[in-house]
Amino acid sequence: MPVATAISPLAPASFPEMPPIEGVRLATAAAGIRYAGRTDVLLALFDPGTTVAGVFTRSKCPSAPVDWCRARLEGGGGARALVVNSGNANAFTGKSGRAATKLTADIAAEAAGCDPDDVFLASTGVIGEPLDATKFAAVMDKLVAAAKPGHWQEAAVAIMTTDTFPKGAAAVVRLGSSVVTICGIAKGAGMIAPDMATMLSFVFTDAPIAPAVLKALLRQGVENTFNAVTIDGDTSTSDTLLAFATGAAAPRGVAKLARLSDQRLPAFRKGFDAVLANLAEQVARDGEGARKLVEVVVEGATSKRSARRIALSIANSPLVKTAIAGEDANWGRVVMAVGKAGEPANRDRLAIWFGGIRVAHKGERDPGYDEAAVSAAMKKPEITLKVALGLGKGRDRVLTCDLTKEYVAINGDYRS
Amino acid sequence: MPVATAISPLAPASFPEMPPIEGVRLATAAAGIRYAGRTDVLLALFDPGTTVAGVFTRSKCPSAPVDWCRARLEGGGGARALVVNSGNANAFTGKSGRAATKLTADIAAEAAGCDPDDVFLASTGVIGEPLDATKFAAVMDKLVAAAKPGHWQEAAVAIMTTDTFPKGAAAVVRLGSSVVTICGIAKGAGMIAPDMATMLSFVFTDAPIAPAVLKALLRQGVENTFNAVTIDGDTSTSDTLLAFATGAAAPRGVAKLARLSDQRLPAFRKGFDAVLANLAEQVARDGEGARKLVEVVVEGATSKRSARRIALSIANSPLVKTAIAGEDANWGRVVMAVGKAGEPANRDRLAIWFGGIRVAHKGERDPGYDEAAVSAAMKKPEITLKVALGLGKGRDRVLTCDLTKEYVAINGDYRS
Repeated sequence: MPVATAISPLAPASFPEMPPIEGVRLATAAAGIRYAGRTDVLLALFDPGTTVAGVFTRSKCPSAPVDWCRARLEGGGGARALVVNSGNANAFTGKSGRAATKLTADIAAEAAGCDPDDVFLASTGVIGEPLDATKFAAVMDKLVAAAKPGHWQEAAVAIMTTDTFPKGAAAVVRLGSSVVTICGIAKGAGMIAPDMATMLSFVFTDAPIAPAVLKALLRQGVENTFNAVTIDGDTSTSDTLLAFATGAAAPRGVAKLARLSDQRLPAFRKGFDAVLANLAEQVARDGEGARKLVEVVVEGATSKRSARRIALSIANSPLVKTAIAGEDANWGRVVMAVGKAGEPANRDRLAIWFGGIRVAHKGERDPGYDEAAVSAAMKKPEITLKVALGLGKGRDRVLTCDLTKEYVAINGDYRS
Repeated sequence: MPVATAISPLAPASFPEMPPIEGVRLATAAAGIRYAGRTDVLLALFDPGTTVAGVFTRSKCPSAPVDWCRARLEGGGGARALVVNSGNANAFTGKSGRAATKLTADIAAEAAGCDPDDVFLASTGVIGEPLDATKFAAVMDKLVAAAKPGHWQEAAVAIMTTDTFPKGAAAVVRLGSSVVTICGIAKGAGMIAPDMATMLSFVFTDAPIAPAVLKALLRQGVENTFNAVTIDGDTSTSDTLLAFATGAAAPRGVAKLARLSDQRLPAFRKGFDAVLANLAEQVARDGEGARKLVEVVVEGATSKRSARRIALSIANSPLVKTAIAGEDANWGRVVMAVGKAGEPANRDRLAIWFGGIRVAHKGERDPGYDEAAVSAAMKKPEITLKVALGLGKGRDRVLTCDLTKEYVAINGDYRS
């Protein structure tokens, strides 16, 4: 059982208002996968014609549901259902894991009256334990019967593991004379590092979008959102981000987004990326044991790619993260993390800011550095750590959180 | 001030017996660099003719003493003195840092009656604070006067920072009709990752060794010792390993080790590597907050290099390390760490052992896996975690420790 944990102090005040998406119906149930007294299965049903795209973990040991989804996407079909469970990741479960995905899809397809190849799957929770997919059979008919538009918060709650709050975000975008809606949910908390989606997240829209366009939107969208968040540098075997486009807005006069050159695409992308960015930030805000949201900005690098690597080296450094937990503007550890990144850097050109206050300049302590002002900045729940390398125009930004004793407590006691 | 910490439960029972090295004299003093009530400066004096070699951090932002030593080694001279201080790393200290190294070398050279270019330096402690080198002037004459053979434990104590015990190791090697002695000391504890020496360590011998041979011995020696130890994946700006060979055994009939083809070299290397391996293991045993010494063995990889990368991915994973702290044989997290390493791996061929007990086999839980036996193994202070990939003959081994709340406490409160 996960350790009972108080809601993250960095959580949003409340779950956002999220409108229903035409063509998407949701239901949740308690199937007793692992947890008692809570929902652990989410079913999403999609109207015929729904397109789908996905991005997944780069792990060389992906979970069985990741393999399943990749194969479905290669098949090029549409999506009619999504089944997500928490409590068991169905990862490193060998043949029984593959059998469990097939069985789950069959159960959902029969209840929903669709082809199993149009059923998408995601599982999150413990790795290495067999998933008893027959538990889905006991709840599936009820889920299909109960599925209704909306229910976003219940959906976000059902997929939580060590998350301390449900994560949702929505955007409404005008496309020509009509509007379309984008809603997303996510779960995160631990085993979060940018090597693709880095958690489970599902995004839904009523816009009609060709699969290739949806895929391009996703691939570009994750780059500065989910791929720019790191909690602990560990990458899940199960990272999954799926986007579903029902096309239900078409009868309202929204022509299909069929090409990347479509002039309406930038407007749609803006809303889509905003949903991804909002969800990704919520994941950082719910990092296991997090007490501080940390934005790491690197500028003056030789390239954006180099800036990203340096930012990640800083954001993943246990010594930087523990210093921030201790409210210590320890720029020396930032120098260490810049130095170990392996990217071009010149010690004597480095400048470092904590909370907007420059603490180091030209390779040494800033002479005008006011310890009291920095101490006050470090006590805030949100801290920006900026490094200027003075070498070029490469700039990037990643989000992370501090490393606290609670992270160790949560992860030293998760499985047993 | 470092947090007062109890001696690591993984510490050796006592400091080893270490014979004096002819041609090496040591002395320590309390110069008040940062700590009160303890020694913080080590002076080593070497007889004329002493050769020296070094390996250093790969950080792009090395400390001023690292720059100083590299320049001296490029000059190709010998070594007459070594000055090491704890409490301040003299890193990220700009021009004042460079001036401090010059001043320290001048002070030592004048007191010892040698060329400043034959003085080697190392500093460890806080990064980013100016080092007041004039403090060395107050103690240097006394240090020179007090320097005597032996004193290894005092030397090892003076260079400690968050270390909980002094680290020393010795070997005696027969070369032809005579014997030579190798003694080493080290400090470690945090900011330890394999990117060269990964801490301060100094090794001394009375064998006569040409600089090029000494350098080759060091480079090869660190590969499976200091470079195979990781505590937190963070790499210091100050990592320094220096080896000094006084040649004092020459009059006893030990001919100079002048070529890599020398037939006596394997015997010497064996003793030399044993000293490095012993010191490196002590560093892992004193990882900040460590309660478990963890040996990660990876076999069946496509190459040794690939095995090393996978072993480091496991050894540096916060989720694996916290699980071990929680005495949980969480093989799922090991799969995760294998998967994120980016090296060839086949999920369905993986086998995993904790404490010699196979818990996973052919990509799933071992059917014969006995939870009670594994639980007992996980309670031991020393745990071997083995992964077999089933792909090739690549094998490697790294040492690490668990990640505990004490690590966070030590590092959240180190500087302030």
